[in-house]
Amino acid sequence: MHIHIENDETATEALRLNSAYLRQALDAHRQLCGQFTLTENSDPTQTAAFLANCDILWAGRKLALDQFATPRLGWVQVMSAGVEQWLAHWRKGIALTNASGVHGEKGAEFILMAALMFNFAIPGFLQDQAQRLWRPTFGGCARGKTVVMLGVGGIGRAAAKLLTAQGYSVIGVTRSGQCDAEVARCIAIDELDSVLPQVDVLVSTLPLTPQTHRLFDRRRLALLPKRAGVVIVGRADVFDYQALREQLRAGDLAGAVLDVYPQEPLPVDDPLWHTPGVIMTPHCSLDDHSAYLDRCLELFIDNLVRYRSGQALRNQVDMQRGY
Amino acid sequence: MHIHIENDETATEALRLNSAYLRQALDAHRQLCGQFTLTENSDPTQTAAFLANCDILWAGRKLALDQFATPRLGWVQVMSAGVEQWLAHWRKGIALTNASGVHGEKGAEFILMAALMFNFAIPGFLQDQAQRLWRPTFGGCARGKTVVMLGVGGIGRAAAKLLTAQGYSVIGVTRSGQCDAEVARCIAIDELDSVLPQVDVLVSTLPLTPQTHRLFDRRRLALLPKRAGVVIVGRADVFDYQALREQLRAGDLAGAVLDVYPQEPLPVDDPLWHTPGVIMTPHCSLDDHSAYLDRCLELFIDNLVRYRSGQALRNQVDMQRGY
Repeated sequence: MHIHIENDETATEALRLNSAYLRQALDAHRQLCGQFTLTENSDPTQTAAFLANCDILWAGRKLALDQFATPRLGWVQVMSAGVEQWLAHWRKGIALTNASGVHGEKGAEFILMAALMFNFAIPGFLQDQAQRLWRPTFGGCARGKTVVMLGVGGIGRAAAKLLTAQGYSVIGVTRSGQCDAEVARCIAIDELDSVLPQVDVLVSTLPLTPQTHRLFDRRRLALLPKRAGVVIVGRADVFDYQALREQLRAGDLAGAVLDVYPQEPLPVDDPLWHTPGVIMTPHCSLDDHSAYLDRCLELFIDNLVRYRSGQALRNQVDMQRGY
Repeated sequence: MHIHIENDETATEALRLNSAYLRQALDAHRQLCGQFTLTENSDPTQTAAFLANCDILWAGRKLALDQFATPRLGWVQVMSAGVEQWLAHWRKGIALTNASGVHGEKGAEFILMAALMFNFAIPGFLQDQAQRLWRPTFGGCARGKTVVMLGVGGIGRAAAKLLTAQGYSVIGVTRSGQCDAEVARCIAIDELDSVLPQVDVLVSTLPLTPQTHRLFDRRRLALLPKRAGVVIVGRADVFDYQALREQLRAGDLAGAVLDVYPQEPLPVDDPLWHTPGVIMTPHCSLDDHSAYLDRCLELFIDNLVRYRSGQALRNQVDMQRGY
């Protein structure tokens, strides 16, 4: 079987899989040693030739798969959790596995930090500091406050566990209303409106799908209480950012910790940069480059064993659901 | 026995102990019911008369005890953790108990938040945001990073437990080099210089004593690596704030999360307000007003039982150590 590695020539070294490194990982595995031929490419003009001859693709960059001939290709492993851009150009019958879960630990730490920042009124104190205002407020502990966690996939599940351990009451929100994460309770997306008035912290880890696109429109955002903080680390287009910005400016929310944006990099003239209560990180807070490639590779190796023996793959994307 | 409650008339309602409320707590306790007479005052011109006639003082504000006649007074319970201002005017033979530990839970949450903020480079991203700069950095997890915790009293101990649970490697620093907190190891203050180059996050919960005053002078601050963040929630005068500010401005530290200042409120013209990397809260991040009085009262009730039976008091200040 032939595995092709398609790297992104513009990506940092730490995110490019080297075929010698993969070979080493394969050779170290009793069931995989000697079973694969490998190629590696990062020149987009050569991609078509490589795709025409591989059985398995490790994709370090996004490809419009329907624009290539892929007669032998049965499975693509991508390095991102979100796959909506892949699905727009998919080819039926090919399995797709994503990197969901690889971001879990760092993402969970980021979400815990953001939740605590709202408890300690950091968005408000940053504004006071800018104006040299001394205005203490003596709020309570984070323990017992309510977090609504939108999505309990890799990141959401890890964050729910950490927040629950920290004493937060976590309400998970999933498509089905079911989940096996450590939450106080789990509800379905269509029950969402009923819990929004209780929110201290709203966290979105949702993928972008037709069902989640603009899920938080102006009306739904307005159901959040003034004390609520919003943390967005999933896909940006789940939210109406203009409505969010206007609500923050009006003081109708406590703040927002944002890692993702409708357009990235965020344009220099976007008013979000200087919206009161917004704390921005530039789409980097979940990615741990030092561990990322190795964790993706671990998943890939495990999946290679499963693929060869006909078992279900881990992290296989459901084409109907879109994640 | 007579208990006098001296309240601070300028304090918020939530921090003033009402004699009826104390009476209720005493009556609910088998060993304390019917044993005490109570008075309550918040008028400074009347304080002397009340102090002349009490055996036990609940002090809701600072008093220069040596300026009063206190013939019967045997014990003072204060509502703060730091007592250096009391000790400057102490009268020998009177027991002093502080409120150390009352702040533990909220303080620990604040310290965890601050440590995570350094891990996610928030001080730097806030500066980038102000300048509309998109400059992602992809650091690792907080897990495994090193926190040096100066002082493991009520707050330090609670924070060490939380940070250790979160995967941080915590080095406790105490006068003796011994502690029973959940730390990776504990060292004495005079071994401090040897661990400073390893610091990811330096947290100070230290009280102000002759030994801790300006413990972090310019020389010692300069031993911290550039990646280090500093969190100060204990007494400000343990640090040379001018040297700290200059190091931050020079980029020799990752940032500082500060809750306390050499002068409070911080003067409007203090350059610290706009020092790069500084995140300020106005001396309020440890105090949970909603729970504060009740937790102090629990401690006081427990100590009343001990006092009557001649047992050692909890939180009794060692006059030699000064905390």
